[in-house]
Amino acid sequence: MTLADDEAAHLIRVLRLRPGDVVRAFDGHGREFEAIVDHAARRVARLRIGDAIQPAPERHVRVTLAQAVLKADKMDDVVRDATMLGVAAIQPILTARAEATSTAVTRRRDRWERVAVSSTKQCGRAVIPALLAPCTFEELITAGVRSPRAAVFMFVEPGVANGALLLQEVAAKAPDTATVIVGPEGGWTQDEVAMGRGACQPVTLRGPTQRADAMPIVALSALFARWSEW
Amino acid sequence: MTLADDEAAHLIRVLRLRPGDVVRAFDGHGREFEAIVDHAARRVARLRIGDAIQPAPERHVRVTLAQAVLKADKMDDVVRDATMLGVAAIQPILTARAEATSTAVTRRRDRWERVAVSSTKQCGRAVIPALLAPCTFEELITAGVRSPRAAVFMFVEPGVANGALLLQEVAAKAPDTATVIVGPEGGWTQDEVAMGRGACQPVTLRGPTQRADAMPIVALSALFARWSEW
Repeated sequence: MTLADDEAAHLIRVLRLRPGDVVRAFDGHGREFEAIVDHAARRVARLRIGDAIQPAPERHVRVTLAQAVLKADKMDDVVRDATMLGVAAIQPILTARAEATSTAVTRRRDRWERVAVSSTKQCGRAVIPALLAPCTFEELITAGVRSPRAAVFMFVEPGVANGALLLQEVAAKAPDTATVIVGPEGGWTQDEVAMGRGACQPVTLRGPTQRADAMPIVALSALFARWSEW
Repeated sequence: MTLADDEAAHLIRVLRLRPGDVVRAFDGHGREFEAIVDHAARRVARLRIGDAIQPAPERHVRVTLAQAVLKADKMDDVVRDATMLGVAAIQPILTARAEATSTAVTRRRDRWERVAVSSTKQCGRAVIPALLAPCTFEELITAGVRSPRAAVFMFVEPGVANGALLLQEVAAKAPDTATVIVGPEGGWTQDEVAMGRGACQPVTLRGPTQRADAMPIVALSALFARWSEW
């Protein structure tokens, strides 16, 4: 098979591989193969695909991270980290206090997809998480969230939502699929918290205040611990 | 009280506070006070200290993060994140594959202390974690670790250590103090794993491969979940 231009450039110029070198090829949907470089010159790379190999197992719980769009490279980091942690999908959301507009976010989506592909390769997964089309928080809550309420977790600051669970009060038995909603740098508005409370399970973390860009990695690491995914 | 030069500069030039403005002052050891800006000009800032206030509670388990020194700003990020997660101390360690020398690391310690102070302020803690003097992995294992073996956790890659626990096999009851050891970009050597196994409890994480600079935040978030600290 002939690689796409950017993968060919990566193979030839960054990895500096030559004909005869052994690599692993994956289709991004969970299939992985041994392969040998057949041709690698003049921006064209061809692989000879060999035996299928057992890919790294995915998480039992299929998590969609619904992340309020953060500033510039912070959002790149979140896409990279969420991919590394093993989410099944990333849903960028626009909230009242997220600084991005819908047009700007649509333009950034290509970039996030490249970040997800690169992180998938780096962490040895065979599945590239789906980068879903950006939507508003309201759309996510009213139309997008079709899972039972118990499997949609909205992380909120301490004290803003009555009935918010502590992490250790989340059921230890993992759901099959879950949506994990994390807010923007400026936090949720009261309206959003109220809207979320009707459709999701609010969760709050004790201890020092977590930075917005650290929140998804902390929340996912903690939830995966709660669900025995580590 | 008169603030130190760098804190005065921060108050005057970054926060742009003026006499009469209300702030919180903390001593870095767990005491916090209401305070009013009394003077803020010409690089000198003075506060009038008021009533003591209840500081944010610290973690029940006093964790020392023993982190193999990472490259440049990656280590700054680890110090910042570990402070935000609520560790009691950070112990930089030199390992066979860490790229830093002892002299270079000693020079970087001042910088890490500034990062820890800044992160402490940002996340609302009243305790600045202790930045311990760098030591080698061998010193940590042979002399430094005086806690019972069960409370020293060494994170290792899957498959390198027989008897490594999965995260969910770590005792759910938190110890009073714990040391969490995380390796460098290049991983542990076999010798280090063997040495560690005698003195610590190896722990391994399933799932995609975590980047070295993400490992401490993932490991601490997951352990704090296991110990119901969230």
